[in-house]
Amino acid sequence: MVSMSIPTVNDLAASARSTRWVLASRPSGWPTEDDVRQETVELPELSDGEIRVVNEAISVDPYMRGRMNDGPSYVPPFELGEPMDGAAVGVVVASRSEDVPEGTRVLHGQGWRDVAQLSAAKTQKLPDLRDTEGPLAASKFLGIAGMPGFTAWLGLTRIAAMQEGDTVFVSGAAGTVGSAVGQIARLKGAARVIGSAGGPEKNRIVTERYGFDACLDYKRGDVMGQLGEAAPNGIDVYFDNVGGDHLEAAIQHFNDDGRAALCGAISQYNDDQPAPGPRNMGMLVTKRLMLQGFIQGFYTEAMGDFLAEMGPWLAAGEIVADETVEDGIDQAFDAFLGMMQGRNVGKMAVRTAVAD
Amino acid sequence: MVSMSIPTVNDLAASARSTRWVLASRPSGWPTEDDVRQETVELPELSDGEIRVVNEAISVDPYMRGRMNDGPSYVPPFELGEPMDGAAVGVVVASRSEDVPEGTRVLHGQGWRDVAQLSAAKTQKLPDLRDTEGPLAASKFLGIAGMPGFTAWLGLTRIAAMQEGDTVFVSGAAGTVGSAVGQIARLKGAARVIGSAGGPEKNRIVTERYGFDACLDYKRGDVMGQLGEAAPNGIDVYFDNVGGDHLEAAIQHFNDDGRAALCGAISQYNDDQPAPGPRNMGMLVTKRLMLQGFIQGFYTEAMGDFLAEMGPWLAAGEIVADETVEDGIDQAFDAFLGMMQGRNVGKMAVRTAVAD
Repeated sequence: MVSMSIPTVNDLAASARSTRWVLASRPSGWPTEDDVRQETVELPELSDGEIRVVNEAISVDPYMRGRMNDGPSYVPPFELGEPMDGAAVGVVVASRSEDVPEGTRVLHGQGWRDVAQLSAAKTQKLPDLRDTEGPLAASKFLGIAGMPGFTAWLGLTRIAAMQEGDTVFVSGAAGTVGSAVGQIARLKGAARVIGSAGGPEKNRIVTERYGFDACLDYKRGDVMGQLGEAAPNGIDVYFDNVGGDHLEAAIQHFNDDGRAALCGAISQYNDDQPAPGPRNMGMLVTKRLMLQGFIQGFYTEAMGDFLAEMGPWLAAGEIVADETVEDGIDQAFDAFLGMMQGRNVGKMAVRTAVAD
Repeated sequence: MVSMSIPTVNDLAASARSTRWVLASRPSGWPTEDDVRQETVELPELSDGEIRVVNEAISVDPYMRGRMNDGPSYVPPFELGEPMDGAAVGVVVASRSEDVPEGTRVLHGQGWRDVAQLSAAKTQKLPDLRDTEGPLAASKFLGIAGMPGFTAWLGLTRIAAMQEGDTVFVSGAAGTVGSAVGQIARLKGAARVIGSAGGPEKNRIVTERYGFDACLDYKRGDVMGQLGEAAPNGIDVYFDNVGGDHLEAAIQHFNDDGRAALCGAISQYNDDQPAPGPRNMGMLVTKRLMLQGFIQGFYTEAMGDFLAEMGPWLAAGEIVADETVEDGIDQAFDAFLGMMQGRNVGKMAVRTAVAD
């Protein structure tokens, strides 16, 4: 559905302006409209090697709340008074780079704005992909065909080195990353895929919509006991989105040579109140287990391998990827708040321009 | 020093008897003489593919106490009324295997006896190695040139993938494995090698005798603070012999992409009273850390690579390996108890025969 409320790529290409969101103050607790402001600036002439990109879709993500704080983290904080950034997909409308000519669709890091201008070297060219609806929407390159999908694929296949016949356990299974992990595991021949999610409704989605064989409801407690019932023959791979009791349960139920890929979510823990670690770390030795933390880089070499696998799955309709898309750069902060409140189903993104 | 109390290889080869230690009852708490007995049996004719080995040295190790219990573990329990086993080095005195002819020196798993008889396929041929004293004593193939040395080398170079210039932290640094880890790290170009050991005397040995750059005294407490002082630029590799607060301190002070090899000792934890896990597991994600538990196999393919590196180090006197050797198969249980009581300095072994 094309909305009349958002401009076309050509509309935006014709101007040399960018409308963007600036961090006005560091939020204390829940962010409000007072912590951000919109501004529209004239863009300078392109320097050598630069491109101008009209963003079609920009991402809003939980980790951005952390970037609104000051202090050390694995991603630098947003600067006060400066535009915020994040993942974005768009079309090159002007180029002083031979490598990335006009008309190319790129993934890059200048989100939170409708028009971006940056070094071509800091962007990644995107292939033409299709799903069962037709050409892949730009927003999908922020979800199943973007960082979340890549995180799922990378952690499962490269970090945890999943093999055909493995039993795979995934926490946060109703989420964008977790739902992709389970579906990729199935497509790659897992013997059994077990998720964990909170509440009966999410459990139902995980098994019925995303096709997991079983799902634990962590809100019922006793994650360890539930996992034992769901995985009577143990697990071989664990994709961790939450840490805590789920990691302890996975360690307990790992078969020999089990591998866990630990993804970003547990880094959200408040450092002032550290969560207790698994009480069964000794099993890392007796069962020869491997735990590997990872953060998918934005421009990694493996992204091409990922898209080469994901493309056919999407074209054949073999993978379900929910998304909630709001329209218009003006709606970006509202979409961010909505995502933080759980108003989204699947990946939350903002559509900032449509093709002509 | 050759003792008159122990037989020569030829003495034992001339008989077809084996004197061995049998588990008579499962000890409750500290093992006593009543829990074991010696027996001497006639050996049967060799079957096809078998060899007879006069053991020159046999190993006594902490993990053997665990094997005296019943119940699941990563090594099976000793059977009641059956001979115990463990690492041994000896000379083949009769062979029905073309691969392992008479006169070969082998490493194998039939310890706790003076003469072994087993399938040639279950033994590993040992190279002629020398140290600064001359040909390498058999007992050294149970220590620095055997499982403990191999464990150190494997964990450091293959599991934790130590690179030149890394800062390496080793717990249990005064022990057989730990002291080898630190010395191998230095020989392979570590920028800095930091140990942990209990008490000022062990600390002194670790730095002065084994050449570590620094050593924490964990008996003083605050392992995390001590490690911070000893490693102002962080650590890259951690070789874990103890778990608990040392692992938590290592995670805290790891640089990005840090790797921990987790070795057997933490498997000694009593499963009824699980130790709390590290409270900073979230750092596995933010710093992209890897924890890998491992148990060195006895007959692994990498053993040859290990000996090819260790041989020249021993010949050149570049590595210090303490051992405490008691003489005579009759003394095996006493040596085991002494090892459990800490009477040994370095690797504890029993010499059961001398070359003629």
